[in-house]
Amino acid sequence: MQKIVCMLRLTDAEKAEYVKAAGENEIIFTKNSKYENIMPVDEALVCDADVIMGWIPPALLPAAKNLKWLQAQSSGVDNYMAPGLLKEGAMLTSATGAYGLSVAEHTFAMMLGIMKNLPAYRDLQTAHKWEDVGPVKTPRGATVLILGTGDLGSTFAGFCKAFGAHTVGVRRDPSKPAAGIDEMHAMEELDRLIPEADVVCSLLPHLEEYVHFFNYDRLKSMKKDAIFLNAGRGSICDNEALDRVLKEGHLWGAGIDTPEQEPMPEDAVLWGQKRAFVTPHIAGGDHLDDTLRKVAAIGLENLKHYLAGEPLRNRKV
Amino acid sequence: MQKIVCMLRLTDAEKAEYVKAAGENEIIFTKNSKYENIMPVDEALVCDADVIMGWIPPALLPAAKNLKWLQAQSSGVDNYMAPGLLKEGAMLTSATGAYGLSVAEHTFAMMLGIMKNLPAYRDLQTAHKWEDVGPVKTPRGATVLILGTGDLGSTFAGFCKAFGAHTVGVRRDPSKPAAGIDEMHAMEELDRLIPEADVVCSLLPHLEEYVHFFNYDRLKSMKKDAIFLNAGRGSICDNEALDRVLKEGHLWGAGIDTPEQEPMPEDAVLWGQKRAFVTPHIAGGDHLDDTLRKVAAIGLENLKHYLAGEPLRNRKV
Repeated sequence: MQKIVCMLRLTDAEKAEYVKAAGENEIIFTKNSKYENIMPVDEALVCDADVIMGWIPPALLPAAKNLKWLQAQSSGVDNYMAPGLLKEGAMLTSATGAYGLSVAEHTFAMMLGIMKNLPAYRDLQTAHKWEDVGPVKTPRGATVLILGTGDLGSTFAGFCKAFGAHTVGVRRDPSKPAAGIDEMHAMEELDRLIPEADVVCSLLPHLEEYVHFFNYDRLKSMKKDAIFLNAGRGSICDNEALDRVLKEGHLWGAGIDTPEQEPMPEDAVLWGQKRAFVTPHIAGGDHLDDTLRKVAAIGLENLKHYLAGEPLRNRKV
Repeated sequence: MQKIVCMLRLTDAEKAEYVKAAGENEIIFTKNSKYENIMPVDEALVCDADVIMGWIPPALLPAAKNLKWLQAQSSGVDNYMAPGLLKEGAMLTSATGAYGLSVAEHTFAMMLGIMKNLPAYRDLQTAHKWEDVGPVKTPRGATVLILGTGDLGSTFAGFCKAFGAHTVGVRRDPSKPAAGIDEMHAMEELDRLIPEADVVCSLLPHLEEYVHFFNYDRLKSMKKDAIFLNAGRGSICDNEALDRVLKEGHLWGAGIDTPEQEPMPEDAVLWGQKRAFVTPHIAGGDHLDDTLRKVAAIGLENLKHYLAGEPLRNRKV
């Protein structure tokens, strides 16, 4: 008999399906999120767990000495992959596939809002000022360059296309197409593609070799009226360089859901940017009901596979 | 020989086509917009004009004693229709058809931004605060009720559908379909439709019988977490009632490009709304290049018709 600790936010109907799937095994439901924390997630809960499903603080993971499988609630699982966290031999699966809609919609909201000068209009509204700040931009006919063309990038690309944009994707293997991407290129072509794009959007996970890829020179190589977006991992963009480039009057604007440092320090330069939206890494997370239902479905599918001894979906370790 | 005063913002290529279309007639180009005003638009310019094309202050119109045709730059032309402004017998045509993209994109930007809590996040950004304000909404599966299903409403509906919404339109003659609208109903059905909608969006022109149609009771009849949008004429919504309803915690938020009074007075209650975007009637106007090119095309087509004695497109008077 296995002990399954499930911290996913499930509906009652979903819980019933998990109980059925667990069969003779013990399954314990907790609630754990930034909004609800009913059962404390502590050592006592996880020390003898065979399976953990949901968001567990990485620092608590070494306490799970009996762990055989961790089903993460997130798409990025690099936080769990530092040496010494996950028990040797344990499997790790992500919730990749659950966040495309949420992240893509938020990223598109930032992009379209910046095109329509909504950051400036919100500030004028706060100051009770009726003032026209001038021309706006449109996705129609714009070239949108998307780094990372998995679930997130592909969904975002589809929205851009629905608004009449031309979408260019880059991925490691450009021979693999992705829905919503008009042209696919290799990562190595970025220096040629960046200066041609009206929007550059990174939705990549943390990649060691791309830390500060968007440095001052690359951001400056973008069109003067282009828009830079990042809702992937923050490490790809040098935030001080981005602020400097914006202050020099280069770029139309920027939308950053994932700054380099989280939480972004109170004195970070980007906060004050007139032409940027900065949001506190909320594009994904558990903000959209659609995400929670998809995470629940991925977890249930994997639970069935796990108990049947079958290969797991989204396996990372 | 006729004198044509053209105040539209044209490209050089467009000007050449206008000159060709004008043939033996005199055509004078001025630049007139909120951004550029090179040749003053005054009595001396318009007093002997047979044709005026572009934005002329309504108060100056009585000076055009020789006027035979006014091609307005705007879609709404009610400002020119007050008694005593337009010379008797003169024709008036609008630029209806040029603003759909611009207004629909801005309206969608407000809607999606409100769904993603961007007004609140912009304020937190200004305060240098990293704070998660909680759940967001999605257009996917939402029912969007659209008042006015011409160029603006139909284009907006198409965007909503691309994001997975169900679109319900109301128009005077519901037997006439419109692209992007899943279900069409008569205006008389609004009181039944409003409580069922997740988003209510007015893109109607000023209609005497619909002044303050969105009063306290109708706004309160909307779902508690619905969104109200207005980028049509402001008179349809009682802005103080909207503010009151929002302050009571009803509605998820609102997006208003067209408040009742323009400019909105500095002490208007809506400015301070935490859950609203208020923009200064800039959804349309001359903010998007696409609009200017479409206005130029409508003007050119009508100029050819006019000089050939043929019926004009978008004729209002």
